[in-house]
Amino acid sequence: MKLSQYFLPTLKENPIDATIASHQLMIRAGMIRQTASGIYTWLPLGLRVLRKVEKIIREEMDAAGALEVLMPTIQPAELWIESGRYDAYGKEMLRIKDRHDRDILYGPTHEEVITDIFRKNVTSYKDLPKNFYQIHWKFRDEIRPRFGLMRGREFLMKDSYSFDLDEVSAKKTYNLMYETYFKIFRKMGLKPMAVRADTGAIGGDLSHEFHILADTGESAIYYDKRFESENLSVVEMQNLYAMADEMHVPEKCPIAAEQLASRRGIEVGHIFNFGLKYSKALEASVMGPGSPCLGGSSERVSGAMGVHNNNQKIYPNMGSYGIGASRVVAAAIEANHDASGIIWPKEIAPFQIALINVRAGDELCDKLCEEIYQKFSANGTEIIYDDTKASLGQKFSIADLIGIPTQIIVGPKSAAAGKVEVKDRKTGEKKEISINELYQK
Amino acid sequence: MKLSQYFLPTLKENPIDATIASHQLMIRAGMIRQTASGIYTWLPLGLRVLRKVEKIIREEMDAAGALEVLMPTIQPAELWIESGRYDAYGKEMLRIKDRHDRDILYGPTHEEVITDIFRKNVTSYKDLPKNFYQIHWKFRDEIRPRFGLMRGREFLMKDSYSFDLDEVSAKKTYNLMYETYFKIFRKMGLKPMAVRADTGAIGGDLSHEFHILADTGESAIYYDKRFESENLSVVEMQNLYAMADEMHVPEKCPIAAEQLASRRGIEVGHIFNFGLKYSKALEASVMGPGSPCLGGSSERVSGAMGVHNNNQKIYPNMGSYGIGASRVVAAAIEANHDASGIIWPKEIAPFQIALINVRAGDELCDKLCEEIYQKFSANGTEIIYDDTKASLGQKFSIADLIGIPTQIIVGPKSAAAGKVEVKDRKTGEKKEISINELYQK
Repeated sequence: MKLSQYFLPTLKENPIDATIASHQLMIRAGMIRQTASGIYTWLPLGLRVLRKVEKIIREEMDAAGALEVLMPTIQPAELWIESGRYDAYGKEMLRIKDRHDRDILYGPTHEEVITDIFRKNVTSYKDLPKNFYQIHWKFRDEIRPRFGLMRGREFLMKDSYSFDLDEVSAKKTYNLMYETYFKIFRKMGLKPMAVRADTGAIGGDLSHEFHILADTGESAIYYDKRFESENLSVVEMQNLYAMADEMHVPEKCPIAAEQLASRRGIEVGHIFNFGLKYSKALEASVMGPGSPCLGGSSERVSGAMGVHNNNQKIYPNMGSYGIGASRVVAAAIEANHDASGIIWPKEIAPFQIALINVRAGDELCDKLCEEIYQKFSANGTEIIYDDTKASLGQKFSIADLIGIPTQIIVGPKSAAAGKVEVKDRKTGEKKEISINELYQK
Repeated sequence: MKLSQYFLPTLKENPIDATIASHQLMIRAGMIRQTASGIYTWLPLGLRVLRKVEKIIREEMDAAGALEVLMPTIQPAELWIESGRYDAYGKEMLRIKDRHDRDILYGPTHEEVITDIFRKNVTSYKDLPKNFYQIHWKFRDEIRPRFGLMRGREFLMKDSYSFDLDEVSAKKTYNLMYETYFKIFRKMGLKPMAVRADTGAIGGDLSHEFHILADTGESAIYYDKRFESENLSVVEMQNLYAMADEMHVPEKCPIAAEQLASRRGIEVGHIFNFGLKYSKALEASVMGPGSPCLGGSSERVSGAMGVHNNNQKIYPNMGSYGIGASRVVAAAIEANHDASGIIWPKEIAPFQIALINVRAGDELCDKLCEEIYQKFSANGTEIIYDDTKASLGQKFSIADLIGIPTQIIVGPKSAAAGKVEVKDRKTGEKKEISINELYQK
């Protein structure tokens, strides 16, 4: 992409309403713009990052056997009345009347909708387990939207919902998601941590929050230092002490102070096992083995919660698993920036290379830049080429601000010598290499 | 994907509320389910098709130099009051009050939002032309939602918005989009047609509707038969007679009856040039060349609408361009189905191959199917493998219903002979080929 053809409205100054680094930098780097309080438009640079986050989530959810669906943003109130959450949810739910005066709402979460799909389309225990996910927009009418995407109103979420035949199977699914979440965030080049958390409005008694570690993080988390050792199994990890702020009571902490680590984190994911809460409320059941309608054998299915008789309907044991996909973009910036701007992990960087033409208009510089641009584009490397006539200082500032991992700088002197300068955004390290070396990398 | 692990709730009977082929078949093939009136959930099979439609649109919009953004679904009423459309839009706009009693709405279209982005971020004529697009969900509160996705309330749309310095440049952009739309629909394996159309609520005086030709189409379109010849340029096409139903007045038709073709079509796209309507209403302007603030030269920019003086602000000439992405899925089915089900064009088929194990449980059949499944999966071919114990009749019906272009049928007799049967869904043609031949294809 050539910068002259792109849309990158960068700013030198921090906007006055932005008080945290990610909010400031996303505005300054031309990634987002506010359209209304807590509601943002994603500009081309920001959208590229968001799509990468989506892609990594999708790959890992698919690999874990989850099935992608897409539920509507607008939901009928009836389903929430059935589950008992319509009145309970409070003012964060955006409640709407349609033209026929029917109560609808902009979904803040989708337990009800997926359970409705399930009860109408799944009839046999043979179809379980199932884990459905979507990556879609949600709305929560925050009383005081702030911190940019951190506490916005319209946001992109990956939410998934699992249905298992019994508690043992549900715990397996839960653990698979727990493991998948670590894979997802690590694949993004981020440092995730899982802590026990309150289950809140979703319900159930087993729940973990996932945080991205960042010194500027919004909340404190507390965990056993052994968590930082490599190669722990899911069960080992879950057996270690690791608590969200509100769950950590120092006087009751079972581990020694010198064994306890405390870090700042940004919550980007939350997983829940809530058992039968929604399947019972919405009367979502399947027929067990041995049911005459299914012509099955007379096996028995036993679950930790009891033994199902033959011919009996079974309420699936459910869980839900969320990732704040748009929030991840902000969290990644909180964890990766310096005074000059963003430092993208390469896995979610909007471009891999920023090519800087030191003297646009100079025949040699233009020719070499064009050649480099074409070569990298042709092999699929994402490259943004600053071909504008802005000053060199401006070009360097923008490249640092938008945080592309590698900068290639082409000036008249080095070009004449068949060389370019390569700068690593993270370390600041610069070196001059020949054009041939550049193409070999 | 193995069918036993998938979620494909197919139905033998047409649902009673579905009266047109695409609606019936999307429900029966387990592509979508209704969540509320005119509001659907996309199940895994349907979502695969929708994503392919999106991908083709994205590729061609990118190739045409348009820049992808993502605007919020929820918009502030203020922008629509500014443009003068808030009262005019009527009850199709879903109007909402947030918790602070502010007027917001679920966007039915985004001219106001993008013009607001433009006016706040683009200042110089040098940044023009620009063409922004998004692929996102919209809501129109239809009084009587029906025909499934054809007249739904929540729907996926590609909408783009162009900003040009003058009318001549705007017409170029318009023509590029006109051409791009033909490319997009043809790349999907569909037969598009462009007709002159009324500009309606969007405004302006130049507009074309794009239809997918289908005998079951909702509306009649009329056009000069010469349109069907190959290799017409955009200008030649636009000079031929081609009218939407409401624009065609037989008594006034300038071409001879024998020269006139009439076909049924389904509207899937609409492009507009509306000049200065929104840029003036929202006071979105750029500084022209020669402006002292921009330090430009004293060149003059002349447009068909007049000559801009130096130092003067210029209101960009705008256009908007829509494709009903979710509607395209339904239109593709209307144009491609038979009594047994859907017949996907391979470009947007959810899978390329349906592998049918005639006798699941038979050692030889299982082994050969698994081998075929692994080989095709490994080379990236999208294959759905019916590994279930359903009856053969059921398996054939489902494969025909969901319309995968090629079926590979593995039975015990042919497997023993090292052969498989290959069926073309469209022609119904079957032939037995050796396993080696299969892998060579």
